[in-house]
Amino acid sequence: MQRPSGRQPDQMRDVRITRNYTKHAEGSVLVEFGDTKVICNASAEDGVPRFMRGEGRGWITAEYGMLPRSTGTRMGREAARGKQGGRTVEIQRLIGRSLRAAVDLEALGEVTITIDCDVIQADGGTRTASITGACVALADAINSLKAAGKVKGEPLARMIASISVGIYEGEAVLDLDYPEDSNAETDMNIVMGNDGGMIEIQGTAEGEPFTEEEFGKMLVLAKKGIAELNELQLAALAE
Amino acid sequence: MQRPSGRQPDQMRDVRITRNYTKHAEGSVLVEFGDTKVICNASAEDGVPRFMRGEGRGWITAEYGMLPRSTGTRMGREAARGKQGGRTVEIQRLIGRSLRAAVDLEALGEVTITIDCDVIQADGGTRTASITGACVALADAINSLKAAGKVKGEPLARMIASISVGIYEGEAVLDLDYPEDSNAETDMNIVMGNDGGMIEIQGTAEGEPFTEEEFGKMLVLAKKGIAELNELQLAALAE
Amino acid sequence: MQRPSGRQPDQMRDVRITRNYTKHAEGSVLVEFGDTKVICNASAEDGVPRFMRGEGRGWITAEYGMLPRSTGTRMGREAARGKQGGRTVEIQRLIGRSLRAAVDLEALGEVTITIDCDVIQADGGTRTASITGACVALADAINSLKAAGKVKGEPLARMIASISVGIYEGEAVLDLDYPEDSNAETDMNIVMGNDGGMIEIQGTAEGEPFTEEEFGKMLVLAKKGIAELNELQLAALAE
Amino acid sequence: MQRPSGRQPDQMRDVRITRNYTKHAEGSVLVEFGDTKVICNASAEDGVPRFMRGEGRGWITAEYGMLPRSTGTRMGREAARGKQGGRTVEIQRLIGRSLRAAVDLEALGEVTITIDCDVIQADGGTRTASITGACVALADAINSLKAAGKVKGEPLARMIASISVGIYEGEAVLDLDYPEDSNAETDMNIVMGNDGGMIEIQGTAEGEPFTEEEFGKMLVLAKKGIAELNELQLAALAE
Amino acid sequence: MQRPSGRQPDQMRDVRITRNYTKHAEGSVLVEFGDTKVICNASAEDGVPRFMRGEGRGWITAEYGMLPRSTGTRMGREAARGKQGGRTVEIQRLIGRSLRAAVDLEALGEVTITIDCDVIQADGGTRTASITGACVALADAINSLKAAGKVKGEPLARMIASISVGIYEGEAVLDLDYPEDSNAETDMNIVMGNDGGMIEIQGTAEGEPFTEEEFGKMLVLAKKGIAELNELQLAALAE
Amino acid sequence: MQRPSGRQPDQMRDVRITRNYTKHAEGSVLVEFGDTKVICNASAEDGVPRFMRGEGRGWITAEYGMLPRSTGTRMGREAARGKQGGRTVEIQRLIGRSLRAAVDLEALGEVTITIDCDVIQADGGTRTASITGACVALADAINSLKAAGKVKGEPLARMIASISVGIYEGEAVLDLDYPEDSNAETDMNIVMGNDGGMIEIQGTAEGEPFTEEEFGKMLVLAKKGIAELNELQLAALAE
Repeated sequence: MQRPSGRQPDQMRDVRITRNYTKHAEGSVLVEFGDTKVICNASAEDGVPRFMRGEGRGWITAEYGMLPRSTGTRMGREAARGKQGGRTVEIQRLIGRSLRAAVDLEALGEVTITIDCDVIQADGGTRTASITGACVALADAINSLKAAGKVKGEPLARMIASISVGIYEGEAVLDLDYPEDSNAETDMNIVMGNDGGMIEIQGTAEGEPFTEEEFGKMLVLAKKGIAELNELQLAALAE
Repeated sequence: MQRPSGRQPDQMRDVRITRNYTKHAEGSVLVEFGDTKVICNASAEDGVPRFMRGEGRGWITAEYGMLPRSTGTRMGREAARGKQGGRTVEIQRLIGRSLRAAVDLEALGEVTITIDCDVIQADGGTRTASITGACVALADAINSLKAAGKVKGEPLARMIASISVGIYEGEAVLDLDYPEDSNAETDMNIVMGNDGGMIEIQGTAEGEPFTEEEFGKMLVLAKKGIAELNELQLAALAE
Repeated sequence: MQRPSGRQPDQMRDVRITRNYTKHAEGSVLVEFGDTKVICNASAEDGVPRFMRGEGRGWITAEYGMLPRSTGTRMGREAARGKQGGRTVEIQRLIGRSLRAAVDLEALGEVTITIDCDVIQADGGTRTASITGACVALADAINSLKAAGKVKGEPLARMIASISVGIYEGEAVLDLDYPEDSNAETDMNIVMGNDGGMIEIQGTAEGEPFTEEEFGKMLVLAKKGIAELNELQLAALAE
Repeated sequence: MQRPSGRQPDQMRDVRITRNYTKHAEGSVLVEFGDTKVICNASAEDGVPRFMRGEGRGWITAEYGMLPRSTGTRMGREAARGKQGGRTVEIQRLIGRSLRAAVDLEALGEVTITIDCDVIQADGGTRTASITGACVALADAINSLKAAGKVKGEPLARMIASISVGIYEGEAVLDLDYPEDSNAETDMNIVMGNDGGMIEIQGTAEGEPFTEEEFGKMLVLAKKGIAELNELQLAALAE
Repeated sequence: MQRPSGRQPDQMRDVRITRNYTKHAEGSVLVEFGDTKVICNASAEDGVPRFMRGEGRGWITAEYGMLPRSTGTRMGREAARGKQGGRTVEIQRLIGRSLRAAVDLEALGEVTITIDCDVIQADGGTRTASITGACVALADAINSLKAAGKVKGEPLARMIASISVGIYEGEAVLDLDYPEDSNAETDMNIVMGNDGGMIEIQGTAEGEPFTEEEFGKMLVLAKKGIAELNELQLAALAE
Repeated sequence: MQRPSGRQPDQMRDVRITRNYTKHAEGSVLVEFGDTKVICNASAEDGVPRFMRGEGRGWITAEYGMLPRSTGTRMGREAARGKQGGRTVEIQRLIGRSLRAAVDLEALGEVTITIDCDVIQADGGTRTASITGACVALADAINSLKAAGKVKGEPLARMIASISVGIYEGEAVLDLDYPEDSNAETDMNIVMGNDGGMIEIQGTAEGEPFTEEEFGKMLVLAKKGIAELNELQLAALAE
């Protein structure tokens, strides 16, 4: 088996995390997984949605979008079509749910942090890059709340990161790029915390079902990838 | 640990599969997982969506809905609000993707089968009940195509079923009902084929992350549940 | 003239009214006019729409939908298309308006009862079945409000029922099923109270205009049908 | 009983029908029922909707709208709100259905005539004025098709007109204006042909049910009104 | 160069301004620029949009629409299509912005005036006719507020009017009608106050760019036209 | 008068034009006017919209969007709200219209070029930056069509650029940033070709009307700015 990129089965693409990418957001990160590039902006606002008011807990939510020409052929602009597609909805729900697992909502208090993940250039793995970059933007937004004295305890419960694994030409591989993703037999996205806890597992057999053994191999790769991503996140935050 | 229903941790609710539930659809099933009741109608139509025309392959798609008062308090009707909610979109994508893994689309030929899963009464596990019932409706629809001579080979590659597992009060349990689902620490939905292959795994930590050990326990329960559901499906089809 | 079903011109289909059909709603009825089957759920909630607040009067409203495959060929799901069709809107306005004539809104107090009529299987006459079943669900919902001490007087002013009549092959017939409905020259839906009062008359010439004499014959049939339906409603409520 | 306008119970408002009101439409009529003013434009286009193609029959459809300030207080503009309200949908379906009863669609051939009824000023009875004016615009549009040689036979099967009747302060009255309409116990709109045939009857008890005797009185008034309107239509067409 | 209408290059079409055109609105004007006819209704309501509350200033906003058959071929009804087109949005923003320049919002106090410009018949220049007529309707609405004692100072800062100019067959012309507008090389709409101040200039090269010299010639024509329109506005208000 | 940025009245912000910013689009430019940053992607596709087919001419269209947190406070995502706002529609129409003036559509042939301008970070002047950057992306897309042999002549008729001018604290200034833009008395956006021709002028008095003299001063500044931008565009294309 030869990966289209020439990478080893357990080798991630080059990952770069650039903080303070835009100037307005409380947290703003450009995350790159190889040619996949996503801007993750975290916006903190006082108050929570109506259904949570008065409970003293905060809220984390996420939205996801792709620039129309982030992909090989131009996709219609969702704002012009008047609705978000099913894939978009599915991804932004995953991002929001995952990030809520990174935060102690009680400690956050009645503040809403909205994470916008906008894909500038797509080459596979946009959802895993989004989650990984968004957690850094979230950490920055929380730090800005703490600096402003709006938050007293420590709302950041853990750093989370996400990576894809899959079965490509019969073999388990880490961090699928677009040529792999579009031909993989199985595609799995995993979100884990830097404490080793599992937050989300979403595995899908694209064609034939996969076996428990294959699942086990993918899990090993995923844990390796998440650990590397956690290090990169912490290094970025330490800069 | 005491389950609200008094069930054993590895005990599913009573499951009933009623075929030919309505008279118009090529396949029509009422599936009940305890108090969760879903009508699954499979409609077969000649032709495939534009992007697949001329390739000689069929298509399976699914839509999901809940009657506004299938739940404890009335939800707004999606048709009246003018859009399907994010949860609805996520579930119907899961149902469609899972069922496509049950079918050999080449053998189906240029036919589209649309599965409508409409929840009449909800008590947790509507997506797993939907997938389990829908596969029986799908089998009936395929049989009607075969009886009509529209299909020659065998498009049904395998029967699939789905069950939820979770961590409730620290223990792994099978087939969560609503009181469990709304309090579980972790919720996982699994789709498997009757050949033992894995088709979808979607695990979510609602609060704290879960461990690999917990994951392993849940997987054991899920496989037990799927096996029981497969038997019930085959028994229903044999009637 | 021979009716497709072999019924006499003044003969209704078998009508069945099943109460407590689902478990969550304050009133829940499955109504069957032959092969036409509709779930009617009545949901009672405190409060009224903004434009009525503070007047001390209640509100009754209705929504109507058809499962996509309740019909011979699958219809697009309205929630997916993003809007309710004109026929749906017309029918749910009729149902709501008719049921308001069954209720003393002053006696109800600031409570809203929403009636959801969802057609599981269609064979003509879904709007008349909906109104007839919905009134029983409404009565149950009012009874639950009375039992809970939320309502003191008697908000149910009268029971109402609805039936269709038409001119089929030149002759007046009662309770048209789908084969008749799609070929009738004239189609009329009538809503009446069990006190004999008329609440709605909607008659439409599908092709040629109809005469006053034909109108008179249809009215006689309708009154007979409504009387039978009223009896069935009361019998169901007495169970 | 004193009508707010001082009219006799069987007295219509002054009705005026102005043809060629705007210059672009094949038929363009301003119809006035007292202070109710509606522009009815009939647009003829080659071809029919997809579901009718190749059958050799024509199609008549209608749309209805109100200028936002045609009423006493400004209503939101439906185009800005992004959907037509339920009342609008109900009325435009009534107009279209009624006008189809005026036309021999076979004789029309594969031509679509769209009738736009736009209310400039409202004072009750906008739907009856719309139908009455629209039939004149329709006749003009058909005449323009005949003059252009696009139609050979006589597609206009009959002239139709519409009037409202109601029970106001216990008495049957003809052609309700807004002060009557908003207080009437019963409101009925009737569409008839100039051959005396009945096309649509829509009667609604706003509060208490109405009796057959009241219904009979209203019908007598309606027939008188329709006859007067038919004369005014023919006089306008003869100019 | 011969204009299709035979007018001189600096000659406007006949302009008519009819006040009190409909009876409900606080200001109601029919404005005609030749065959272009627009109803401009100004509706005054207490209160301002949420984002302005408590500031003591008023608000002016505008909406624009065309009857579907105001044009040579029927356009789809925006309310039925479920959204306003881009051209509509652009025009109504221009009208609202221009009229706000006619008003001292502080003097108006917390009142909203909504201007509805509905095109009954189009023959070019509907946006300039709309602004010109709308300002007269606005003046009437302000006068009605003053008469009702709701406004104390003088909110009307100036009368504004609007005219189009363009380069047609190489020559600058005033007030383009549809045959000119659809063939002009350059089209410019100008809004000015009766104090000579410039409020909006929107010039567009439809094909080839235009020169500063052409721009200067158009500006001279526009000022002439605006002056004539201001006189007609004042004459109408003096009636 | 002191500009917030300390710039001279006739001094633009630093402008940077980065080509090949993303890898998929036929033309991809990051344009920066100081802190305003816009990605301009030009996508070339065979074929033209239905209304132009068979005429042998090409089409240029544009869409515009802002990332939700490109601004000081987060704006709602248009895709999530289900419609593009009025300002968005107005701007994208301006961009498309302007770029069509840069192209000889006959020479382009039946090809559509869609320009997506997505604002990454906003600090005033996003529409002028968009047009200026988009024209470079357009040139690259046209070059790629020429390189591919899909176009034979020279479709690029001229380079166009755009700049804003305004009256800030009584003085004419060039290239307004956000602090100026939100306080300017008059704001004007001008689009010109590198042949000195004028393509669009859009001037708006935000408060008081402006005079011809002020207009003249702004025009002088605009021409200076456009000339500088044209040089920067050509330099970028020469790289």
